[in-house]
Amino acid sequence: MLEKNKKILIIGLGLLGGSYADALTSKGYYVAAIDKELESIEYALSKGIIKSGTTEVSEEFVKEFDILIFCLYPKLFIEWIDTYQSFIKPNALLTDVTGIKKYVVENINKILRKDVEFVGHHPMAGKEVYGVKNATKEMFKGANCIITPTSSSTKDGIKTVQSLVELLEFQNIVTLSPAEHDEMIGFLSQLTHCIAVSLMTSKDSMNLVKYTGDSFRDLTRIAKINENMWSELFLLNKEELLTQMTEFEKEFQKLKNALQEEDIETMKDMMRLSTTRRKYFDQ
Amino acid sequence: MLEKNKKILIIGLGLLGGSYADALTSKGYYVAAIDKELESIEYALSKGIIKSGTTEVSEEFVKEFDILIFCLYPKLFIEWIDTYQSFIKPNALLTDVTGIKKYVVENINKILRKDVEFVGHHPMAGKEVYGVKNATKEMFKGANCIITPTSSSTKDGIKTVQSLVELLEFQNIVTLSPAEHDEMIGFLSQLTHCIAVSLMTSKDSMNLVKYTGDSFRDLTRIAKINENMWSELFLLNKEELLTQMTEFEKEFQKLKNALQEEDIETMKDMMRLSTTRRKYFDQ
Repeated sequence: MLEKNKKILIIGLGLLGGSYADALTSKGYYVAAIDKELESIEYALSKGIIKSGTTEVSEEFVKEFDILIFCLYPKLFIEWIDTYQSFIKPNALLTDVTGIKKYVVENINKILRKDVEFVGHHPMAGKEVYGVKNATKEMFKGANCIITPTSSSTKDGIKTVQSLVELLEFQNIVTLSPAEHDEMIGFLSQLTHCIAVSLMTSKDSMNLVKYTGDSFRDLTRIAKINENMWSELFLLNKEELLTQMTEFEKEFQKLKNALQEEDIETMKDMMRLSTTRRKYFDQ
Repeated sequence: MLEKNKKILIIGLGLLGGSYADALTSKGYYVAAIDKELESIEYALSKGIIKSGTTEVSEEFVKEFDILIFCLYPKLFIEWIDTYQSFIKPNALLTDVTGIKKYVVENINKILRKDVEFVGHHPMAGKEVYGVKNATKEMFKGANCIITPTSSSTKDGIKTVQSLVELLEFQNIVTLSPAEHDEMIGFLSQLTHCIAVSLMTSKDSMNLVKYTGDSFRDLTRIAKINENMWSELFLLNKEELLTQMTEFEKEFQKLKNALQEEDIETMKDMMRLSTTRRKYFDQ
């Protein structure tokens, strides 16, 4: 378990950052935050989610913390390190919650000071709402978390991130290399968002609400999407996502051809395979 | 409201038929069922979901009923009418719950006796489980229902089906022509099932469970699919479904091309449009 005297700094106090702050504060840790929006800091202070906070990045503030959790978009995270890393306390442990890892981990490790360590992770949880006002410490209960160390990560660094995320009560915490993570997430998360967006844009749907069952609602829940974050994530995992999109297109085309040809056995084979595979997710 | 002395016969006592029986019995109607499985009839009798039931289709049994609800696969429904319609009481009202309507309505009306009337409907509700043992009268609460009359339907016939489905406590009951229904359902239901199946078959996923967030679960919930029923539904709505699949493919290809070209504005435009449209479904 993470030592109680570790001081934790959240950089980027939105939905995820706020939820980390809420969960870690409730476990008795000293948690502070930096965010460019004064309103977010003031809200979190008023709710007791953080003990201190600021909109200004200063050495005096940053150097107090043992653990820094970056909840910024990927490129902004790298810029932050580039600009402010001299403020960080020696031997501090850095982690992040970004949804792509190869680009982030490679770029951070390329520029990072050698007396601090970065081990990324990705909490597989989210909501279709934004901001610290929607944050909740319950967000990670029952969810999966992927930690993404590299060959140069220390045992202590990995253990600290492990202990940190255990506090958030994830159901499963697993470890993957950044490249494995991006392949997995390209399929499980990015491809599904591409499908949801494309389905939602294929037909004007204002009048469809009164006809729909649950299927369409389920498939498009994630079609409400933050276009700035997701376009950045897609581009930073471009090759992997294009590969996954092509794989999906092939299967979709196979089903379409079977329907066109009235090849009922191929249709049934695909349905049987999908039924078998989907059952893994019910256990 | 449907007159209390109307006697209702369910033909096909599975998940849907059983749920209709349970709901209508609980509202005080006399409900009976025909099913080829003795076990289903016995179960429903033991639970008080039906008052009487049989596995044999006989004139003596069928002629008692004022309203017949067919919960059979489309082709089986047409075969049933072809074989047994002479048993039906004059002036009876027939309806069905099949998921495609143009094929069913045209074929039934082509062969149906002129002294009985058929007005179809489609309850937009379901579960990924089967059989009368999973039936529940709660199934339709909050769901949508589409009634599909034709130009030759009588006001009384439409009104009877309307009164019948009102008893099931749907949230919305709307009317569409069979062709409009099939276009709508091709998009909202059949296309979504094609997508879910194709997504599930594109990657062996046994080891993906521990990495996944909610997105993949949501998009593949309906990938557990009854291959006999759905392949029949797809084929009986072939041209419409192929059109919808092509529309979706175009949008998916557009997003893929934008990613390939790093055309971030097109990506963001699609995401903004999908976000706007998805909001209709939250109201």
